[in-house]
Amino acid sequence: MQILHSLPKDDGFHMPAEFEAHLGCILIWPERRDSWQFGAYAARKAFSKLVNAISLEGHEKVTVACSHSQYKQARACLDPSVRVIEMSSDDSWARDIGPSFVINNDGLIRGINWSFNAWGGLYNGLYFPWDKDDDCALKLCDLYDADAYDASDFVLEGGSIHSNGQGLIMTTEACLLSKGRNPDLSREEIEKKLCSYLGAEEVLWLPRGIYNDETDEHVDNIAAFAAKDHVLIAYCDDESDPQYELSQASLKAIEAYNESHEQKLKITKLPMPYPITMREEECQGLDNWGFEPTRTPGERLAASYANFYIANDSVLMPGFANEERKDSPDYEIQHKRDAEALSIMKEAFPDRKVIMIYARDILIGGGNIHCITQQVPKKA
Amino acid sequence: MQILHSLPKDDGFHMPAEFEAHLGCILIWPERRDSWQFGAYAARKAFSKLVNAISLEGHEKVTVACSHSQYKQARACLDPSVRVIEMSSDDSWARDIGPSFVINNDGLIRGINWSFNAWGGLYNGLYFPWDKDDDCALKLCDLYDADAYDASDFVLEGGSIHSNGQGLIMTTEACLLSKGRNPDLSREEIEKKLCSYLGAEEVLWLPRGIYNDETDEHVDNIAAFAAKDHVLIAYCDDESDPQYELSQASLKAIEAYNESHEQKLKITKLPMPYPITMREEECQGLDNWGFEPTRTPGERLAASYANFYIANDSVLMPGFANEERKDSPDYEIQHKRDAEALSIMKEAFPDRKVIMIYARDILIGGGNIHCITQQVPKKA
Repeated sequence: MQILHSLPKDDGFHMPAEFEAHLGCILIWPERRDSWQFGAYAARKAFSKLVNAISLEGHEKVTVACSHSQYKQARACLDPSVRVIEMSSDDSWARDIGPSFVINNDGLIRGINWSFNAWGGLYNGLYFPWDKDDDCALKLCDLYDADAYDASDFVLEGGSIHSNGQGLIMTTEACLLSKGRNPDLSREEIEKKLCSYLGAEEVLWLPRGIYNDETDEHVDNIAAFAAKDHVLIAYCDDESDPQYELSQASLKAIEAYNESHEQKLKITKLPMPYPITMREEECQGLDNWGFEPTRTPGERLAASYANFYIANDSVLMPGFANEERKDSPDYEIQHKRDAEALSIMKEAFPDRKVIMIYARDILIGGGNIHCITQQVPKKA
Repeated sequence: MQILHSLPKDDGFHMPAEFEAHLGCILIWPERRDSWQFGAYAARKAFSKLVNAISLEGHEKVTVACSHSQYKQARACLDPSVRVIEMSSDDSWARDIGPSFVINNDGLIRGINWSFNAWGGLYNGLYFPWDKDDDCALKLCDLYDADAYDASDFVLEGGSIHSNGQGLIMTTEACLLSKGRNPDLSREEIEKKLCSYLGAEEVLWLPRGIYNDETDEHVDNIAAFAAKDHVLIAYCDDESDPQYELSQASLKAIEAYNESHEQKLKITKLPMPYPITMREEECQGLDNWGFEPTRTPGERLAASYANFYIANDSVLMPGFANEERKDSPDYEIQHKRDAEALSIMKEAFPDRKVIMIYARDILIGGGNIHCITQQVPKKA
């Protein structure tokens, strides 16, 4: 692996869309006790289901990185088709700490090593220290024999960008213009960085993401490309819900884009899950954070169906109705929302098997399926 | 990766000879401060030279495993063609803690996960604990997507066996019959284990190895196959040297083998380096071991030219004359021995480039080039 100081766009590289062909997928085994309740056992179950589905139904080679002490545990939980490797990290967000992979016309892949500061550094970041996380992108490039672009002067998480593979990047203002990332760069300078690193031509800025999203409202929780000209957006039509205004603002931004562009984006609305809040018993299963509770009962979680992963032959999307606990008070309403979202997703991805994974135990950690996965592209 | 409880021989797998084709080579970055003097800086220099030579002149893909804290250091020292990955270990002996890889007729590779107990466990092992080392074989199988044979009921280090790839295994009685490994197994039971795991027919037992070899005299320090019917042996003709008897005994064992077999082994003698002993200043650069010095001035080291690595297009062999310090008191005599050994090796490997690496700083750690490398075979 070589560390490169040139720019991907100048070298003929670009970030393909997630719906293009994958060589594989990377995840990181959950372990952090102030992120994952009760020693991460429930999270491991959800991660394992997801990993095994990506491997066996998504037909891509999955690599799961874990700590030395969790190696045998992870190995025992995961399908033999999955590769388990050791890698130190501070938590489990492969989307945000992994490299963003770019590709050229010959099918050569390289990774971009952004600076990572735990979603806001000392301004409003979510944990300290984050040095092990920040080293992961380089290590993952090395693992895949991919040269690494040094973008260490620019703070970015993979979950804050989506590429349509044809020159268009979608992101949110709430995150990329936040004070905890690149406060000295203007909007125009950030656009230029995104385009030159991701080999793109234009940036579509959505103003906001999902209500109470601790990442400063990453784009991957509110919207995604289903095709180069098709955007799925998490939409809330309940005017009394704080999400209403956020979804409205972002929808309007896409509509405004369409007004000023010849190549229109088809817009499909995904429903919101019924509001999900932390239960008292879940809060009790989390290590505290600086002697304060990490989460408090009743806290609204940033749940969204848009936080899905597009694998080679399948789409893995979160569901929130616990089919093993049909006596849960919110089971009926969540089940209805899940079914509605699933049906829209099946229509949006007619050539892929859409699989819903029960994801409350991933959500509690602060993200969802897209946040914990990172695709490695290949030439189609 | 699947963990298998069958036997490689029954499944049609065998251990190819080291001189057969390699997919790659594994090493582990030196760090342990009671093994590698003065913080391992001199050892790193020697390891890096070796790694870069295997990659650039041996034309095989080298993977170097290191701790999280040494990742960037290792990455900076090694050629970009080398892959650096994170893996916890107790020291740097890829030969002894790595899996022994076996192959079948289709070219599928699998690894054998022997039990490792630091060369003798609580009886006469060299360090405690050794649990991280013992986990490495599984992790390395996983990394290479190779299923792993569970041989955890049998203590063995890769350096204690050589395969000619045609059914013959060479080992030493001093090591394999030692009390610190498999004291409850008879010689015949051990032979049976070796043959069924390594897909072999017969075991050639050499009685002894190299004088003062802390591994209980591993075979890879005294002898090696240059071809399926050609053995190189580290031979001492100085009757006053304690090595004399050991080399004699092992030479006689090979001659006895020849007497009883139709397919004779050609025997080539390698000279011994001029006796190498620890210098006082070297001893001062090692952390102590249980409040006692790890090595003492004047201690004889188990130096041997037989501890080489056969890469795809080259052979990497140790040399002991420091070409950067021609004023060293032993320079002239070591240089003469080095030249003699190099010339014999060139004759033994006419189709490969033989490269000598100055290896005193590897030797101080307790082994040499063969001990720190592990080949991953592939179908020719």
